[in-house]
Amino acid sequence: MQTIRYGGDYNPEQWPEEIWREDVRLMREAGVNLVSLGVFNWGIIEPAPGEYDWSGLDEVVELLHGNGIGVNLGTPTSSPPAWLRKAHPEIRLVDAEGRTLAGGSRHGVCPSSPAYRDACESIVEQLARRYGTHPAVELWHVHNEYGWANVECYCEASTAAFQTWLAARYGDVDRLNDAWGTAFWGLVYRSFDQIEAPAVAPPGVNPALQLDWKRFSNDEHIANYRLQRDVIARHSPAPATTNFMIPNCEGMDYWRWAGTVDVVANNHYLIAEREDHQIELSMSADLTRAVAGGPWMVMEHSTSAVNWQPRNIAKTPGELRRNSLAHVARGADGLMFFQWRASRAGAEKFHSAMVPHGGTDTAVWRDVAALGNDLKALSSVVGSEVEADVAILWDWESWWALELEWRPSVDLRYRERVEAYYAALWRQHVTVDFAHPESDLSGYRLVVAPSSYVLTDAASKNLRGYVENGGHLVVSYFSGIVDEHDTVHPGAHPGALRETLGLWIEEFHPLHEGEALGLEAASGSGLGGVWAGRIWSEHVRLDGAQAVARFAAGPDEGRPALTRHDLGRGTAWYAATALDGPNGLNDLLATALDKAGVERPQGIPDNVEVVRRGAHRFVINHTGQDVQVPGSGVDALDGTVFDGRVTVAAGEVVILADA
Amino acid sequence: MQTIRYGGDYNPEQWPEEIWREDVRLMREAGVNLVSLGVFNWGIIEPAPGEYDWSGLDEVVELLHGNGIGVNLGTPTSSPPAWLRKAHPEIRLVDAEGRTLAGGSRHGVCPSSPAYRDACESIVEQLARRYGTHPAVELWHVHNEYGWANVECYCEASTAAFQTWLAARYGDVDRLNDAWGTAFWGLVYRSFDQIEAPAVAPPGVNPALQLDWKRFSNDEHIANYRLQRDVIARHSPAPATTNFMIPNCEGMDYWRWAGTVDVVANNHYLIAEREDHQIELSMSADLTRAVAGGPWMVMEHSTSAVNWQPRNIAKTPGELRRNSLAHVARGADGLMFFQWRASRAGAEKFHSAMVPHGGTDTAVWRDVAALGNDLKALSSVVGSEVEADVAILWDWESWWALELEWRPSVDLRYRERVEAYYAALWRQHVTVDFAHPESDLSGYRLVVAPSSYVLTDAASKNLRGYVENGGHLVVSYFSGIVDEHDTVHPGAHPGALRETLGLWIEEFHPLHEGEALGLEAASGSGLGGVWAGRIWSEHVRLDGAQAVARFAAGPDEGRPALTRHDLGRGTAWYAATALDGPNGLNDLLATALDKAGVERPQGIPDNVEVVRRGAHRFVINHTGQDVQVPGSGVDALDGTVFDGRVTVAAGEVVILADA
Amino acid sequence: MQTIRYGGDYNPEQWPEEIWREDVRLMREAGVNLVSLGVFNWGIIEPAPGEYDWSGLDEVVELLHGNGIGVNLGTPTSSPPAWLRKAHPEIRLVDAEGRTLAGGSRHGVCPSSPAYRDACESIVEQLARRYGTHPAVELWHVHNEYGWANVECYCEASTAAFQTWLAARYGDVDRLNDAWGTAFWGLVYRSFDQIEAPAVAPPGVNPALQLDWKRFSNDEHIANYRLQRDVIARHSPAPATTNFMIPNCEGMDYWRWAGTVDVVANNHYLIAEREDHQIELSMSADLTRAVAGGPWMVMEHSTSAVNWQPRNIAKTPGELRRNSLAHVARGADGLMFFQWRASRAGAEKFHSAMVPHGGTDTAVWRDVAALGNDLKALSSVVGSEVEADVAILWDWESWWALELEWRPSVDLRYRERVEAYYAALWRQHVTVDFAHPESDLSGYRLVVAPSSYVLTDAASKNLRGYVENGGHLVVSYFSGIVDEHDTVHPGAHPGALRETLGLWIEEFHPLHEGEALGLEAASGSGLGGVWAGRIWSEHVRLDGAQAVARFAAGPDEGRPALTRHDLGRGTAWYAATALDGPNGLNDLLATALDKAGVERPQGIPDNVEVVRRGAHRFVINHTGQDVQVPGSGVDALDGTVFDGRVTVAAGEVVILADA
Repeated sequence: MQTIRYGGDYNPEQWPEEIWREDVRLMREAGVNLVSLGVFNWGIIEPAPGEYDWSGLDEVVELLHGNGIGVNLGTPTSSPPAWLRKAHPEIRLVDAEGRTLAGGSRHGVCPSSPAYRDACESIVEQLARRYGTHPAVELWHVHNEYGWANVECYCEASTAAFQTWLAARYGDVDRLNDAWGTAFWGLVYRSFDQIEAPAVAPPGVNPALQLDWKRFSNDEHIANYRLQRDVIARHSPAPATTNFMIPNCEGMDYWRWAGTVDVVANNHYLIAEREDHQIELSMSADLTRAVAGGPWMVMEHSTSAVNWQPRNIAKTPGELRRNSLAHVARGADGLMFFQWRASRAGAEKFHSAMVPHGGTDTAVWRDVAALGNDLKALSSVVGSEVEADVAILWDWESWWALELEWRPSVDLRYRERVEAYYAALWRQHVTVDFAHPESDLSGYRLVVAPSSYVLTDAASKNLRGYVENGGHLVVSYFSGIVDEHDTVHPGAHPGALRETLGLWIEEFHPLHEGEALGLEAASGSGLGGVWAGRIWSEHVRLDGAQAVARFAAGPDEGRPALTRHDLGRGTAWYAATALDGPNGLNDLLATALDKAGVERPQGIPDNVEVVRRGAHRFVINHTGQDVQVPGSGVDALDGTVFDGRVTVAAGEVVILADA
Repeated sequence: MQTIRYGGDYNPEQWPEEIWREDVRLMREAGVNLVSLGVFNWGIIEPAPGEYDWSGLDEVVELLHGNGIGVNLGTPTSSPPAWLRKAHPEIRLVDAEGRTLAGGSRHGVCPSSPAYRDACESIVEQLARRYGTHPAVELWHVHNEYGWANVECYCEASTAAFQTWLAARYGDVDRLNDAWGTAFWGLVYRSFDQIEAPAVAPPGVNPALQLDWKRFSNDEHIANYRLQRDVIARHSPAPATTNFMIPNCEGMDYWRWAGTVDVVANNHYLIAEREDHQIELSMSADLTRAVAGGPWMVMEHSTSAVNWQPRNIAKTPGELRRNSLAHVARGADGLMFFQWRASRAGAEKFHSAMVPHGGTDTAVWRDVAALGNDLKALSSVVGSEVEADVAILWDWESWWALELEWRPSVDLRYRERVEAYYAALWRQHVTVDFAHPESDLSGYRLVVAPSSYVLTDAASKNLRGYVENGGHLVVSYFSGIVDEHDTVHPGAHPGALRETLGLWIEEFHPLHEGEALGLEAASGSGLGGVWAGRIWSEHVRLDGAQAVARFAAGPDEGRPALTRHDLGRGTAWYAATALDGPNGLNDLLATALDKAGVERPQGIPDNVEVVRRGAHRFVINHTGQDVQVPGSGVDALDGTVFDGRVTVAAGEVVILADA
Repeated sequence: MQTIRYGGDYNPEQWPEEIWREDVRLMREAGVNLVSLGVFNWGIIEPAPGEYDWSGLDEVVELLHGNGIGVNLGTPTSSPPAWLRKAHPEIRLVDAEGRTLAGGSRHGVCPSSPAYRDACESIVEQLARRYGTHPAVELWHVHNEYGWANVECYCEASTAAFQTWLAARYGDVDRLNDAWGTAFWGLVYRSFDQIEAPAVAPPGVNPALQLDWKRFSNDEHIANYRLQRDVIARHSPAPATTNFMIPNCEGMDYWRWAGTVDVVANNHYLIAEREDHQIELSMSADLTRAVAGGPWMVMEHSTSAVNWQPRNIAKTPGELRRNSLAHVARGADGLMFFQWRASRAGAEKFHSAMVPHGGTDTAVWRDVAALGNDLKALSSVVGSEVEADVAILWDWESWWALELEWRPSVDLRYRERVEAYYAALWRQHVTVDFAHPESDLSGYRLVVAPSSYVLTDAASKNLRGYVENGGHLVVSYFSGIVDEHDTVHPGAHPGALRETLGLWIEEFHPLHEGEALGLEAASGSGLGGVWAGRIWSEHVRLDGAQAVARFAAGPDEGRPALTRHDLGRGTAWYAATALDGPNGLNDLLATALDKAGVERPQGIPDNVEVVRRGAHRFVINHTGQDVQVPGSGVDALDGTVFDGRVTVAAGEVVILADA
């Protein structure tokens, strides 16, 4: 049986050697069994082109190995050395404004640059040869945070690569013209080399061009990853990965990345100023699990505050532990922090660490050490699966397309609705999976489509089949509007869902800023109460569906606001406005969950998180009071036996192993 | 007798041919008699340099002609083809930030570029030769929305053209130095080629340079228009125009454009989120009529929502009809929509159309068809004039100059005061004309100068003569301050109006953000009530005028806030602060209107618009209740005879023909 | 005995010669004895390269001299002529965005450009030769507002100059790598020519690089000043200066400038929309005095409104006089205005002047003339010193470093805390000096360190010694964190102050936006009341200090919020949160002032400013009511003898000479 991987980024090059001995001693004290090494050391290991200095890295690898600590070996390509920028100025990233980015930081290079690609290949080849079979190397950490600051480059090399990418995708330019609808405004192309990167331009740049540009930019980063991974694979048996940033890196389509890595690893940092950031963490973990298709690992999170948010609020007592175990509950088999020891210099010196500036007589260090030792007792969790009856559809392409300029309302934002539905389910203690709209949904009792603006014909058929075969589907407004080229499906909206939902939209009626409309449940609908809708209203025309609530005011007063369509053996619900919890959205979801037969844990207080993973049940108390929840089993950490009721202290976590 | 022109932009290239037949059938059903064709088809009709493909356009022209529908034939120069950008990269627009704009949209080219100009001339020559005498071609639609996204270009060709333009304007550079006041900061030029375009620069760029740059930029677009118009005139007897965007295109001085077009055509889109957008529409129509000097046409408006505003609020029931007939009431002899059929792809797919995505079983389509048929009954309106006793001064040069950097307060905004005065008059049911400050004003009983910051010596004399000869003038603060070079008139402010107003300003006292001051009417002034002033206060020194209200607080407590000066046979009023309706501004205007002998319609409820055009009286009920207004005549649409009282249903329009 | 210098910028080139005679007559009427001449006349005196036209300047110098008015002769280098920009386009400033700035304004050139430097040297040589020994020339006004709009340039010449500057500073590149902590992210340099200017780049540019860039940019302006000063010194015995902009020019480190000028001259403009702008003026004056090390002069202030703020609020009655005499009270021996006569054209035509557009029948002119004549009676003030028992630490390097990206909270702003402490002392009628953290502090009873983020080891020792030797020190949070390279001092925060304060910080706890926490005084602390803390909380660990107040809520509830450490013969106080007046901050300071034995004037009403300078006591009544203050002496202006009580009318100033 494997143990949970525990550790963090280790940057010994910032410290004198005497500190290295102290570090390793403390690592052992804290149960650290894996550290990420060399993520940013290109300028150190290759001080000049083709000259290598391995002395420091060799020594640290041996020191760690000698102490039983594994190495997650980085390739340093996210921070190319100054000499490379000087020798090849053409590798510098050009942004959408046409500005060539300066050095002094990391990332500012063009992912399509041949000189940069060649230099990456060369340094990775050196690393893989030297350390590829070293027994300490358990994992390869390729690059760092693909798509963080250089998601798109608009230099000439990028434009040429885009043209090549388009030629490969469309074959001939008339297919591209058809797909992109270039007849609009006469934006027709006669050859691929007439196509420009969508840098700053007058408003109204062809949205299909913009969408393909985003696909291309994502693919260029994948290509760089694959290049490095393939070099490594020639020299090393260790698995390779890179650190994703789900769901806070809009530019990377991780559905496309998923198959390229040997293990999915994710960076997640709390959005510290949000009141409900524990929900956003859960969403991140669930989506990461979906991308991984099973267990995964946290490659970076923080022991406390970060340094790059407007107000870097520190974690509250117990939060490091709650966050960490929430990740484990939702599928993580590894927990790594950025970083081991707080830096004294550089851009991130105010980022928290496992060893803070204040040293080991600190709550952070005590929490780090305690967690490491608890994790040893949780080895039986490793590899086990999280089960969910409910899936939420997620698609980076919908995110991209929905938020292009010139949509019906700026209040339409992809994550706004996804997070609203996710949070409502979280507050009802329902564990969810995320799923791509074209994936097999037959295992779910309920599927929620909150912002599925783009639905291909295949996705449209998939959803219809899901419902006809007994599935329950909840759809929010502005879903199923366009295909993969941002082209409106033929006929009335929502073209990809008209038949499934049993209705069509005569006209969109986006609301004024801050406007809220009352809704009233239709009699006999099984719904009750009075709710408010925001952001959106529309003129729904029923064509098979029935209204279960109507607008009580606004442009669609008296018209359907929520509908239900029984189709085949299933049911499709539709919300034509932005319902919010704790009223309308909770009621709608509760009704749909009931109808779908989704069982929810009972007797759980608000803001207590309960997740089952394999034979374990995690109970995380986010409140400031001790709580009791129903449950039986054995406390996985201290062996306490529970029979019927479990007490979880304020801010604490209990992990119940099935008896 | 002509009929009202009715139709919209037609883009058949976006649809398969079978749709074309359906389109023409529906056009006939809706009474469409004119469509705009080919506005954006350059890339389609000239797929490569010098190669032409007329097949589609020929077929559509014949199809329309065969169905009795006229063609408003576009020149496609606002969307140059990708091959032209590729072959001549120097045509790309460079913005004030120095950014070269990318393709994928329309408009992003330099109006001064020789290569672009030559290509325009060539394609227009081809079009004019081929279709110039076709009987379907009733009108030429040159370019599209001059000045929309490329009002100013800062490339080298533009700088050179600016230097040439300045040399022509000033003859020798010392005249320019004098006019621009370059002695300030020693910004003296010794030759025209030392003058730079006012791209991004340290704050404080010479304002006279900036003003001339705006004049130049406007003139470059006019030159492009003239070039095309002249080519067309060599081959076609049909009149030519282009679509103005009054008053929402700040960069185009339409007083200078007016004489170049055979018919004035305007695009107007509601600012949907504004509560009073029907007033802004009326203002647009009145200003367009002033520019036209008589009847004009709407070249584009929308059946419902647009797609490019932050929240694209749809029109409410009846609003399409109210908006349309308000334009007719204020002088429009044509009503064209953008666009005929809603696009499925491209940047504007969420823009409403005459045929929506939802098809013909929709309120929009029914309204479109009903309007088209009503318009047939209004042919007798065509060509008739709107009469007004009141004029508001309007001058794009004041707009430009007033809003340059480094004015006394950022709350000084040109349209803020114009709209405040316009709205107050609209709410008092007074129809107004707009007029240039140097134009003959003798036909008006009252003239209002809300933001006449720039007044030339000629305008100064014109206004003084107007008053002396019996005119009534209402002036708002910060008017008459500078001449056409943004140079302060000699002596105390307001140099161009001191004698006319009988006062001078010792010092400006702009108020704090949001600050409001009480005003009190002077006893015996004929004014009553307590009002508030915002934005502005100033130290008025009377020199012939009398105070009719005084500041009750603030930096000028006790000093004149409103004054009256009887001069010759007329009267000049002055407001030294931002009075607002419904109190101070309404009272001031009511008093001035009474004194000027301006008759206003009586007994009209709030938010009911009443406009006389020739033998017709339009009554537009913008309220949600049925209203009654005094009136007699025959309903121009259904023949009902009214004798004394006219009932207008909620949201409806009645057009009374004189009996 | 000298007289107070009085006058303003005089720009006769904007006016015909007949106005010059009038100007001089009015200058004499107003007691003007010095005018700044030629500050922006390069384009006029050198119309083409190497051609000079002295006619106008000669005539004006003679005219002034003949009337007994001295000349402060400008070098016109802040507004290079158009021909120089045309001949040497490489002198144009390139900003951080990579935009080359256009002309038409002043300042937009690169301070490191060789061609610009040579042209400066040449014109200054001409000027110094021609006027260097003219008896009218009392002072040289080199350049104008160094660092106003071109504080940093990112062109290639600047980058090369930066590399050279770094090479001189560090000698070899490994010392730079150590100092900058480039091991972080592997940003190691192998030669100085690999270092790029910190133009727009991905987030996280090395902060030490950014700090050195600011030092370099400051030094480049100093170098230009020195060049000019040295040329002048070869030809003229008159002293030289340039106009500082304390404290509103963040980019110039005036501690480094101080030694280069013969007299410190400052420009100060009210931040008109601030309610407490008289306090900001006092702070400016006190900091200028600190930089000067004694008496100084106001080179520019305004008679009333300026033109470049959002809302250019005019001065209220008496404010011109109060502002002017407040400067004198705090050490100014000269009062110059921008400008003599209001311009009719150009960017600053709405800037107030000594002679307004409205002429001499205006309050402004009357105030200008009255002030000039009063100043004659204050000659005995000239040269006398202002005494203060309290110093506030000020360091531009802390300002720069504290506000770099990626600090713990965006609410950490350098001036926020300095102004809070300054204002609290001002409201307690305590006159303060400002001091550099490494300067000799032994003369002060109390030293306040509100935002001393950067403290070098030398400063750390200096402060510790100050306390140990009996000084009283008040420190605010986030002080003493880093050294001069923005590197965190070893160990727990605040590394430079741990021992002096007797505590260490376990963790920073920045608060949410707008959050406020209650504080409670510890019993027996000598403090009372209930206060609020904003912005900041932190986990203070006492190590010698005692808590005098504790957090009553928030992340550090129950932990120390204010502490006191008796060390040697002195005491160090520490505030771990943003206390504000009039409660917590006032109480803390009052307690510390008492303990330090600082006497404060008693019986002074709120918002009455009392400052002693030499044998004079200035009482400035900023309120709208007449006030009485304790005091005896002779009114320096009208000879009234006061014995015990002085009445100062609303808005007025009384200057008491010791009897």
